[in-house]
Amino acid sequence: MMRYQAIVSYDGFAYGGWQKQTNTNAIQEEIENVLLKINGYDTPIIASGRTDAKVHAKGQVFHFDSDRILDDFHFTRAMNSLLPSDIRIQHVYQTSDDFHARFDAFGKRYDYLVTNDIKNPFYERYMGKEWKTLDISMMQECAQVFLGEHDFTSFTSNKIDPRKPRVKTIRKLEVIAHQDHIQMIFIGTGFLRYMVRMIAQTLIEAGKHRITKQQIQDMLNAKDKHACRYKADPQGLYLIEVFYNEEDYLKG
Amino acid sequence: MMRYQAIVSYDGFAYGGWQKQTNTNAIQEEIENVLLKINGYDTPIIASGRTDAKVHAKGQVFHFDSDRILDDFHFTRAMNSLLPSDIRIQHVYQTSDDFHARFDAFGKRYDYLVTNDIKNPFYERYMGKEWKTLDISMMQECAQVFLGEHDFTSFTSNKIDPRKPRVKTIRKLEVIAHQDHIQMIFIGTGFLRYMVRMIAQTLIEAGKHRITKQQIQDMLNAKDKHACRYKADPQGLYLIEVFYNEEDYLKG
Repeated sequence: MMRYQAIVSYDGFAYGGWQKQTNTNAIQEEIENVLLKINGYDTPIIASGRTDAKVHAKGQVFHFDSDRILDDFHFTRAMNSLLPSDIRIQHVYQTSDDFHARFDAFGKRYDYLVTNDIKNPFYERYMGKEWKTLDISMMQECAQVFLGEHDFTSFTSNKIDPRKPRVKTIRKLEVIAHQDHIQMIFIGTGFLRYMVRMIAQTLIEAGKHRITKQQIQDMLNAKDKHACRYKADPQGLYLIEVFYNEEDYLKG
Repeated sequence: MMRYQAIVSYDGFAYGGWQKQTNTNAIQEEIENVLLKINGYDTPIIASGRTDAKVHAKGQVFHFDSDRILDDFHFTRAMNSLLPSDIRIQHVYQTSDDFHARFDAFGKRYDYLVTNDIKNPFYERYMGKEWKTLDISMMQECAQVFLGEHDFTSFTSNKIDPRKPRVKTIRKLEVIAHQDHIQMIFIGTGFLRYMVRMIAQTLIEAGKHRITKQQIQDMLNAKDKHACRYKADPQGLYLIEVFYNEEDYLKG
């Protein structure tokens, strides 16, 4: 048996998430079905973390064990020939026996995209949509509130396990204006469920002048799961990269 | 009764084309269903021309008659609130009673996109995919063959009505290299069925050095419906704009 590490991109719009959440297919299930065909036995895979329904990934990472000896090119080709075309393996290579895609993750990068171009059908599956013009400098100013180590209880799902730690560090939160959309880049040691989408929508509300920097600061300080009622649509969210060492995390 | 002219964009991947061709929905049908709801009576629409299954449009034009008096903003909003989100009306406004979206069209622009980034799941629905690296200057050189007025019998469907004229003028055929894909821009007085996709794939084959400029010239000269056996995948094709006067056509 050898342990393999794989990087996968997916257009998540048609899926119920990494793990089955709704009546639709799960991405994990699609990949495990393919590995069953290639290996001839059940091959569970473990990801760096789950992504929700409709959420995309450019660099999701998972690991699994296989007795196949295949190089990156041939293993990738074999998997992609069997996978649906909206799930594409980028690389799959042998790693050390004790590598763990979730426990060894040092940090992650997520991007959130939102557009004012609400009549563009090509953005429908790939961005959040916003009618109002957004004040970018206000969004950039408010993003500062989230930098550093904080208890993010106010910016996560109500249903989260109360025993789980909710202190996370956000190293970078950039708001960049492109020609027809806004990109928010989140780099941190870890993200709670819905955390990126709740912060993204909070910044969008700030960009509409519906909420002030002080109110956002108060929300964060409250450490109250009912403090924030904003959550951006899932199709604007992308898991861009998982970092497995501090150096990559700090460069990211 | 007033005549209205509308511009519509659609992500055509999920559809069987402008008109019903397969077991899937037709874009025309979706729009007519919405106009039936708004007007309260059957409202047939007439487009500048059909697009095939999976083909996209950024600026398809159609006309229809209605006794509603609505301005662009409100009519667009009413239609978009009822349409599926992959079909978006850009504008709809009153026009002269004798305007005809098909007969009055002076010319059209189509783009074809093809990528080498075959492992990118986000391009799956929106570009042709090509494993081999393409020689852009060869493609640009071969594109010259098609410029001007020609009988395009060799570059259209076998099933085309033999009585229909097959002489068309291509004013512009540009091949542009972008960071991760190639864009081919076609501007002409009209395009036969499959013509853009057949020329696009012929240029892709030239880019792979599978066919020479002279062979392409011979194909065109043959005026034989069996001369060209190439046809690019539909999801890379976009109807960009329909021109209704010579000035716009020459600027396009």
